[in-house]
Amino acid sequence: MKGFILVCSALSTFTFAHAQDSLMFRKISDEVMLHGTCYDNLRTLCKEVGHRLSGTPAAANAVKWGEKAMKEAGADKVWLQPVNVPYWHRGAERLELNMEKDFRQVPALSLGNSKGTGGKTLEAPIVMVQNFDEFKVLPDAAVKGKIVFFNYRFRQDFLTSFEGYGDAVAYRWNSPNIAAKRGAVGVIIRSMSTGIDDFPHTGSMHYDDSVSVKLPEMAIGNITANALEYACSRGTVKAKMTSECHMVDGLRPSYNVIGEIKGTETPERIITVGGHLDSWDVGEGAHDDGAGCVQSIEVLRTLKAIGYKPRYTIRAVLFMNEENGNKGGWAYLDSAKAANENHLLAIESDAGGFSPRGIGMEMDEAKKAQLSRYASLFLPYGVYDFVHEEGGVDISPIHNKMNVPAAGLLPDSQRYFDYHHTANDIFENVNHRELKMGAVTMTQLIYLVCEHGLQ
Amino acid sequence: MKGFILVCSALSTFTFAHAQDSLMFRKISDEVMLHGTCYDNLRTLCKEVGHRLSGTPAAANAVKWGEKAMKEAGADKVWLQPVNVPYWHRGAERLELNMEKDFRQVPALSLGNSKGTGGKTLEAPIVMVQNFDEFKVLPDAAVKGKIVFFNYRFRQDFLTSFEGYGDAVAYRWNSPNIAAKRGAVGVIIRSMSTGIDDFPHTGSMHYDDSVSVKLPEMAIGNITANALEYACSRGTVKAKMTSECHMVDGLRPSYNVIGEIKGTETPERIITVGGHLDSWDVGEGAHDDGAGCVQSIEVLRTLKAIGYKPRYTIRAVLFMNEENGNKGGWAYLDSAKAANENHLLAIESDAGGFSPRGIGMEMDEAKKAQLSRYASLFLPYGVYDFVHEEGGVDISPIHNKMNVPAAGLLPDSQRYFDYHHTANDIFENVNHRELKMGAVTMTQLIYLVCEHGLQ
Repeated sequence: MKGFILVCSALSTFTFAHAQDSLMFRKISDEVMLHGTCYDNLRTLCKEVGHRLSGTPAAANAVKWGEKAMKEAGADKVWLQPVNVPYWHRGAERLELNMEKDFRQVPALSLGNSKGTGGKTLEAPIVMVQNFDEFKVLPDAAVKGKIVFFNYRFRQDFLTSFEGYGDAVAYRWNSPNIAAKRGAVGVIIRSMSTGIDDFPHTGSMHYDDSVSVKLPEMAIGNITANALEYACSRGTVKAKMTSECHMVDGLRPSYNVIGEIKGTETPERIITVGGHLDSWDVGEGAHDDGAGCVQSIEVLRTLKAIGYKPRYTIRAVLFMNEENGNKGGWAYLDSAKAANENHLLAIESDAGGFSPRGIGMEMDEAKKAQLSRYASLFLPYGVYDFVHEEGGVDISPIHNKMNVPAAGLLPDSQRYFDYHHTANDIFENVNHRELKMGAVTMTQLIYLVCEHGLQ
Repeated sequence: MKGFILVCSALSTFTFAHAQDSLMFRKISDEVMLHGTCYDNLRTLCKEVGHRLSGTPAAANAVKWGEKAMKEAGADKVWLQPVNVPYWHRGAERLELNMEKDFRQVPALSLGNSKGTGGKTLEAPIVMVQNFDEFKVLPDAAVKGKIVFFNYRFRQDFLTSFEGYGDAVAYRWNSPNIAAKRGAVGVIIRSMSTGIDDFPHTGSMHYDDSVSVKLPEMAIGNITANALEYACSRGTVKAKMTSECHMVDGLRPSYNVIGEIKGTETPERIITVGGHLDSWDVGEGAHDDGAGCVQSIEVLRTLKAIGYKPRYTIRAVLFMNEENGNKGGWAYLDSAKAANENHLLAIESDAGGFSPRGIGMEMDEAKKAQLSRYASLFLPYGVYDFVHEEGGVDISPIHNKMNVPAAGLLPDSQRYFDYHHTANDIFENVNHRELKMGAVTMTQLIYLVCEHGLQ
């Protein structure tokens, strides 16, 4: 009978813990849904600061905003962690195509980190390919002196749009290197976009060290890409590319913004929750990643508001420079190593302010199994997916170099790549309830780990 | 050994069937996501027909649109099923409040089916209550001759917004009856709205037979309601209500639109999939319920496009008059009974064109259990919720009176009550991927039932 009693006792402890957790989950949810300030914070960030590329005055304003918002959320301690960041300058830009008789300007964005045309106009015929394979088999003469149009379509058949992004993003990241080696003079890409619209999507690209010529690269929206595809299929189209964009030499001083609630029992153990404060230089960086920033701040505010005293130290971090360098993530690692910090878990929200559906995990199997066992607690909140391997760019340095378990909020992904890196990533396209529910999920996860540890 | 072999054989048959089903699920998904026409159909319905209240010329245009769209989708047979519908006429309307010194017009909508002021201006002081309980304890003198402002808030703490709607909707439906009995002269309600905006939400109300005086009832948006709440808390506010709205005597001829694919093996057994074609007389009825209509048509198109020949007859039905009478649902029942039809299952999509999350079921436990066993097939498509009891208004007559098993598509509910019954329920607020994924889910469900029956 002893065994039986033990089992019953363990079970009733579990049931009791579960019931307590369920009540706390509800308390957290009610607090965020009824009194959450993340949506108002996002409005301020989007409308008063606006877009905030690393190294710009707007990014410096965002740091000030973040510091203030952390204090208002009730953090025990708020500080700025120095980060030196690159600065890429867009300047004036213009893409003209003669798809019909005359040249006509079309909506276009130079890709981040790219070198433009030095403000001069580059005019050349376009050669269109559907993908890298088609490009490979083009004869040299068809490429030399041309602007290559990589017409690769974002695959709409992937049910999770991040899979489509992963599939397509090499066209943004690498096309200029591939094209330069064959004597092309410029690159136009179809945007990494699920949108049925004409918003071009910017985002980072890079130049291989092995490539001596840095080609200009511009993205066009899907409607223009469709028109260009049609025109190229009927005859030769020329482009005039004009852009001043370039990387500015040297690094500029900036900051990660950190707010902390000190742990009561083992304050030396740290749980990080964060998003990135920088954005591309169009739109308002609302989903990417204003949402993750205000949700992380909301975690602190909510824990304070419900009077919960976490056993571990909880740190909300607004990372700088995720978009074109991840210098904030690396600075956070450097500081953690220098101080010999003990990190229990890092959570990132950087997939948009949409309804949460899951928690991605990059950690050992035992820890994954432990968190998965809490799935039934999350289910009433629409969070059911505990199978995806996912963390976040900003927390990847501490995950990779210090082996810190990493988790990533997994919101519904259907709309993200309509807005991502566009002028349309604005506050109005974030729904207050969806945004808050993401903050609920992150706060609930932190609560659970504080209560039960992470084995 | 015989038993063992039987088990293995059954198991391998199951595994094989599962693998086949999984492939067909993917085929359906690819067809809809890559070649689906539901989004384009919705654009046409919203932009060329627009809103389409029962009995209006626009509703007649919607019927023509639906007939054409069914034929284009490849239905074997398309027909119009006569339905006599009520007609409620809004006419001119105006609400003015003197929240500050002077009267100022505010955004407001008369509630559907209500009787206005006969075009005259009704001026009276406002008495505000937060809920029915507060109203009950008001002294008679505080109500008599007043316009009652029911300031009940849509509860944002419900995680599924339909729960919030269920909680609040009595204030729209019943307030004039309650207020009339105490001698009030009019009713203003805070809209059934999750929105942080000033869109008033219309929707149906009713007059009790026992109430002799039919009070006018208007809804205001949340921003105006907040302002009115503040003003009422500081002093007496007056309202001027002017509205021409009224029910027009008699019924008008209209139609359900039906498209069918004939079953190959047992064509006499019918699976219905539908949404409602009518909408309120503001906005474009995009989510409510253009989405359900175009998704239902998409089911037919997809089955044809992938060359699937269903064992049972599949009927897409665009029901007329869900919003203020459900005459279409009743006409469908009458016809089914008259023809002694054999209905296997009815599925409705009437909760918006958002990412699907589940399939609600109103059917016996054995059938629920059978459909729940397919959950792992749906999971990769983000559909995991098989626990909610849910069908649809249009299919409720055949469910209730003929005991037809009913299923309701359960999309993400966070944004629905921002748009529901407002001028903002427009095509632009529907995402093409989310809309299509709902059609994927419904087609997959129908495929499964065709393959495996419904026990």
